[in-house]
Amino acid sequence: MAVSLPGLDDGASGARAPVGDLSAIQELVALDLERVNALILDHMQSPVALIPQLAGHIIAAGGKRLRPILTLAAAKLCGYEGDRHYPLAAAIEFMHTATLLHDDVVDSSDLRRGLATANAVWGNKPSVLVGDFLFSRAFQMMILEGSLPVMKILADASATIAEGEVLQLMTANDIATTEEAYLQVIASKTAALFSAATKIGAVVAGRSPAEIDAVEQYGHNLGMAFQLIDDMLDFSAREAELGKAVGDDFRDGKMTLPIVLAIGKADAEERAFWHRTMEEQDQTDADLEHAIMLLRRHRTLEQTFERAREFTDRAEASIRIFPDSPARRALLDVVAFCLQRGY
Amino acid sequence: MAVSLPGLDDGASGARAPVGDLSAIQELVALDLERVNALILDHMQSPVALIPQLAGHIIAAGGKRLRPILTLAAAKLCGYEGDRHYPLAAAIEFMHTATLLHDDVVDSSDLRRGLATANAVWGNKPSVLVGDFLFSRAFQMMILEGSLPVMKILADASATIAEGEVLQLMTANDIATTEEAYLQVIASKTAALFSAATKIGAVVAGRSPAEIDAVEQYGHNLGMAFQLIDDMLDFSAREAELGKAVGDDFRDGKMTLPIVLAIGKADAEERAFWHRTMEEQDQTDADLEHAIMLLRRHRTLEQTFERAREFTDRAEASIRIFPDSPARRALLDVVAFCLQRGY
Repeated sequence: MAVSLPGLDDGASGARAPVGDLSAIQELVALDLERVNALILDHMQSPVALIPQLAGHIIAAGGKRLRPILTLAAAKLCGYEGDRHYPLAAAIEFMHTATLLHDDVVDSSDLRRGLATANAVWGNKPSVLVGDFLFSRAFQMMILEGSLPVMKILADASATIAEGEVLQLMTANDIATTEEAYLQVIASKTAALFSAATKIGAVVAGRSPAEIDAVEQYGHNLGMAFQLIDDMLDFSAREAELGKAVGDDFRDGKMTLPIVLAIGKADAEERAFWHRTMEEQDQTDADLEHAIMLLRRHRTLEQTFERAREFTDRAEASIRIFPDSPARRALLDVVAFCLQRGY
Repeated sequence: MAVSLPGLDDGASGARAPVGDLSAIQELVALDLERVNALILDHMQSPVALIPQLAGHIIAAGGKRLRPILTLAAAKLCGYEGDRHYPLAAAIEFMHTATLLHDDVVDSSDLRRGLATANAVWGNKPSVLVGDFLFSRAFQMMILEGSLPVMKILADASATIAEGEVLQLMTANDIATTEEAYLQVIASKTAALFSAATKIGAVVAGRSPAEIDAVEQYGHNLGMAFQLIDDMLDFSAREAELGKAVGDDFRDGKMTLPIVLAIGKADAEERAFWHRTMEEQDQTDADLEHAIMLLRRHRTLEQTFERAREFTDRAEASIRIFPDSPARRALLDVVAFCLQRGY
């Protein structure tokens, strides 16, 4: 599933494509994931029929279950053999799903993973409320598991995610947004849940603070890279592969790194273009193409990819303090997969 | 602050007005409430400026803090002298505030407590996300307190509230909605938080299961009556006293008890009116007045008030298993206050 990247396609980048997919990690945790999926199915039930209907739509919609898979694999890396992490992995998927439901309302999105969004099918109201229900269910599952340190990790992540989403709203349409502000947004809205997901795998295994920290850093850096590649793909992917419209971030006025970097290098005419399209939200159909041309001119998709590579390098380095094992190899494959999406 | 109630105003009801206000309970917990307010102020902070701004708007907007006050008073009734309940009372107010933010988005409300709603000032997006932030903060505060049984009570209430809100959406515009379905909605969306608020006061005090149950039943029945009176006032109050537009529920197609009962007694012409206005949402400005006339014709505002009185009777009876005390008298005053709002 190679993806067409303007600027990399023209052979300007000499880097070799990383190789990686999710098959090793999916195989590693296949049996565990069945347990988690059963818990997810069980806990999304409610006598209020619309809840399992709407929740099932998004939960079954072909998501990769990447975050719960990371919890399961991190626990394996740390030699954990119990079952405390199953409800926690399910809770993490619920938190993620609740966030997606609310995101799609906030962004007025119609498509996700190639399917109509819940808000497009049922409207905004049930999407907001079923999101709240799934948040509550996530906390119920954590409480069932009963470990305070784990609950604290997840509640903190939940608050951080909301802060990141609000910060993203505040930087939207603001062409003065800095790279630092952008990195803060994605650290909060995306990387916080990746790092919480991996960290609790090490915490339930009772590993040392240094090991817990290494696993957490792996998750954080993977999450940063994951979001950077996502933001790059929003401009460079083919629609069928993206599962949603290309250029959504541009149309929403979201200040993602490819645009932030391009504005940093803009001449007066280019600045006027970004001012009109991003700040005044005055866009025509042709503007997306012009925006992508400017990103190519300043090579900011490549630069975004290189930033992602810096984060994946750190993710790799963190995990290498553990001895070689199938779990470590699978987690390294995820890093390569993350980068490869951007190739 | 007597409120004009069509149908009761004409002297048809022989019942005497109950007397009660919140001054006794406010005095009882004044010092405790200062502690809770300090925690609320402290925990709504965030480096993301819009969060305390928006949260402060609704938290400072003249709410009665009824739910945290109930926790504090229930704890006093049970002889509790510690300080574990302060973060819990603050968490309850955060849960309530998050629900209000999301409710106002779902209902597209412009006014609450006589002030512009957060969604009217800042738009729906930050209201959804700051609601999520406050939910997360509520869970962080519960975890800080660290009692699993208490966390379970609050997480269960949170899931129940969301279920009630979704059920309310499903019954909206459905003139076949039964009284039972309506009672299920308000038990979930309103009474669940009242009963959780009072219950945890007894739980932190380490009272017996029977006493915990009595305090929980007090909260549940008070919450039911509170919502019944609210739904009655939506048709019968004066706007300035309601702090929002009269007839909002009617315009939203919400199937509250005054309407459910009126439909139960409707002739063919009246059914056609309810079908057009509630089910097809085809309303003119004059329809609200006609609707209120039908509620008067069938005396359904009085009947709603009488249902509320049945619940307040139960609330009173529950609390009377405790010996007389300033806390018990204050909690009985709240019951009378709740009914008096409807007079």
